Amino acid sequence: MTTETTEARVLDAIRERRELVNAAIDEELPIQHPERLYEASRYILEAGGKRLRPTVTTLAAEAVTGTEPMGEEFRAFTSLDGEPVDVMRAAVAIEVIQSFTLIHDDIMDEDDLRRGVPAVHEKYDTSTAILAGDTLYSKAFEFMTETGADPAAGLEAMRMLASTCTEICEGQALDVAFETRDDILPEEYLEMVELKTAVLYGAAAATPAILLGADEEVVDALYQYGIDSGRAFQIQDDVLDLTVPSEELGKQRGSDLVEGKETLITLHARQEGLDVDGLVDAETPAEVTEPEVDDAVKSLEATGSIAYARNTAEELTARSKEHLKVLPESESRSLLEDIADYLITRGH
Amino acid sequence: MTTETTEARVLDAIRERRELVNAAIDEELPIQHPERLYEASRYILEAGGKRLRPTVTTLAAEAVTGTEPMGEEFRAFTSLDGEPVDVMRAAVAIEVIQSFTLIHDDIMDEDDLRRGVPAVHEKYDTSTAILAGDTLYSKAFEFMTETGADPAAGLEAMRMLASTCTEICEGQALDVAFETRDDILPEEYLEMVELKTAVLYGAAAATPAILLGADEEVVDALYQYGIDSGRAFQIQDDVLDLTVPSEELGKQRGSDLVEGKETLITLHARQEGLDVDGLVDAETPAEVTEPEVDDAVKSLEATGSIAYARNTAEELTARSKEHLKVLPESESRSLLEDIADYLITRGH
Repeated sequence: MTTETTEARVLDAIRERRELVNAAIDEELPIQHPERLYEASRYILEAGGKRLRPTVTTLAAEAVTGTEPMGEEFRAFTSLDGEPVDVMRAAVAIEVIQSFTLIHDDIMDEDDLRRGVPAVHEKYDTSTAILAGDTLYSKAFEFMTETGADPAAGLEAMRMLASTCTEICEGQALDVAFETRDDILPEEYLEMVELKTAVLYGAAAATPAILLGADEEVVDALYQYGIDSGRAFQIQDDVLDLTVPSEELGKQRGSDLVEGKETLITLHARQEGLDVDGLVDAETPAEVTEPEVDDAVKSLEATGSIAYARNTAEELTARSKEHLKVLPESESRSLLEDIADYLITRGH
Repeated sequence: MTTETTEARVLDAIRERRELVNAAIDEELPIQHPERLYEASRYILEAGGKRLRPTVTTLAAEAVTGTEPMGEEFRAFTSLDGEPVDVMRAAVAIEVIQSFTLIHDDIMDEDDLRRGVPAVHEKYDTSTAILAGDTLYSKAFEFMTETGADPAAGLEAMRMLASTCTEICEGQALDVAFETRDDILPEEYLEMVELKTAVLYGAAAATPAILLGADEEVVDALYQYGIDSGRAFQIQDDVLDLTVPSEELGKQRGSDLVEGKETLITLHARQEGLDVDGLVDAETPAEVTEPEVDDAVKSLEATGSIAYARNTAEELTARSKEHLKVLPESESRSLLEDIADYLITRGH
């Protein structure tokens, strides 16, 4: 488990990289003709975000090459063959893909708020939101072709980015399909989480290893690190929805439950025989009361479902850190371990 | 101008390649888990389409290498360095991108019919249509990483595909923006057409040259061939909307005019002082009568606007064929010239 010191280290690492990432986004995605399209494409990127994935990408670059944290310029990072690679551009590509999925998901899920501001389809309109997402999609691929890495490595990174995007679509399709099913198995839920969320963490961690010329063993290990910590991250998100006060969450606590969204918690509770559908009467997050959510949480605690989700997240986190042992010991590797811990101990 | 013989040659070339393209689409895009997503992704591809762009791609491969038409296996086409390249996979990537844009454009334009069947967002729903488009998008990039070409060439082809997709988004954004503007200049319209339609023809023609190791001069010439013939194609589409009987068009003749869509024809007529907005009273294509369209066409003929569009398309076609002169004379090059002619002489 993270101590306050390791959490502080992670937050420092995120903070110092976030500034560089934001500067790189400004450079790579200038507002140009047609301006409205590019403004809409930048809108969610500018509304905030921790830049967790670019933090993972830049740290993994350091861990692969045995560079100390912030020891090298990410725009011309020395590969294992001694050639400069623009690791930051790859990190921006990953973040831009994340942003594209948020924009399209918000249309599909009819979510009107994102990062405390109106979703793109609300701020602009649905057509613009579809197009803004599509633009970010191709821009990410453009960026990934321009890292200056060895062409074979560059092409391999493109392959990973493309197949990752296909998997994210598959995950979102499963998530949408789950809304009208009442017989989802926990393993189906975990497959959905892996596709919808974890593969992009996998790509964030493995891409720098590919670009910098690391062995396949290292690439695979970093990918699995991302997959396992990404799955843990999503499961923790489901726990937070029930356990963190609304004001800290930035939205009504228990929203997932009110909206009938299945999570590892509800699926476990169903298997334990709990009447999950009867836990709250409210039909919308705006209607539900805090005592109603408190009672639901107590029931989910009684079936051991919240503990089950927490344990699963912890096991996945432990496994994700195991994968890193293939890398030489370093301060950067240690920070990657801390990030895995942080993903499941963060408060929001 | 095309004679009936050259049109027959083009239709033969399209027909014999279409079967191979359709077989390749079946192989590359199998219906897999989650099935509904892949069925929706395949739906418009299966509803028809001439496969014009894959025809251009495969013909350009032959023209670049001096191979006679259908003289080599497209799945293992011999590059200029003697290595096998899967040109067909690149052709499928281009066609799949085209299909993705149709699916998303139909949502944005609220077009409910496509190729005589319900649009994907009508047949399924908007969420599925967004996701089906997104899936085709990443699949196209996956295919382009797997052509077996030299990695530097493969990466260059990826770069062209990605920047082409960005430009298509920009073109669609301009098209959407034009709907609420009444001061569009003909050159703005031509820019929109170039981005929305022509760049994909450019990529269709230039990509095989890149993959097969052709000189930059050849790559550029084929790209410009695609750009100019693609612009001519779109302008011809605008002419056809007014001049081809509804039963042949597969939709009401004059639909663009009724819907207030600006074309090179209406923009020219406005410059000539014609009251374009007063040409038809009907508000929807379902309401308009044939005599009303006839009268509108007469007015647009009187200002010379239809002739102007035809002339522009013919000039672009002549220019597109000029670019091909950098290639050695061959039957395949001659067919590429015929296709340029066909694009503006086709009846629908």
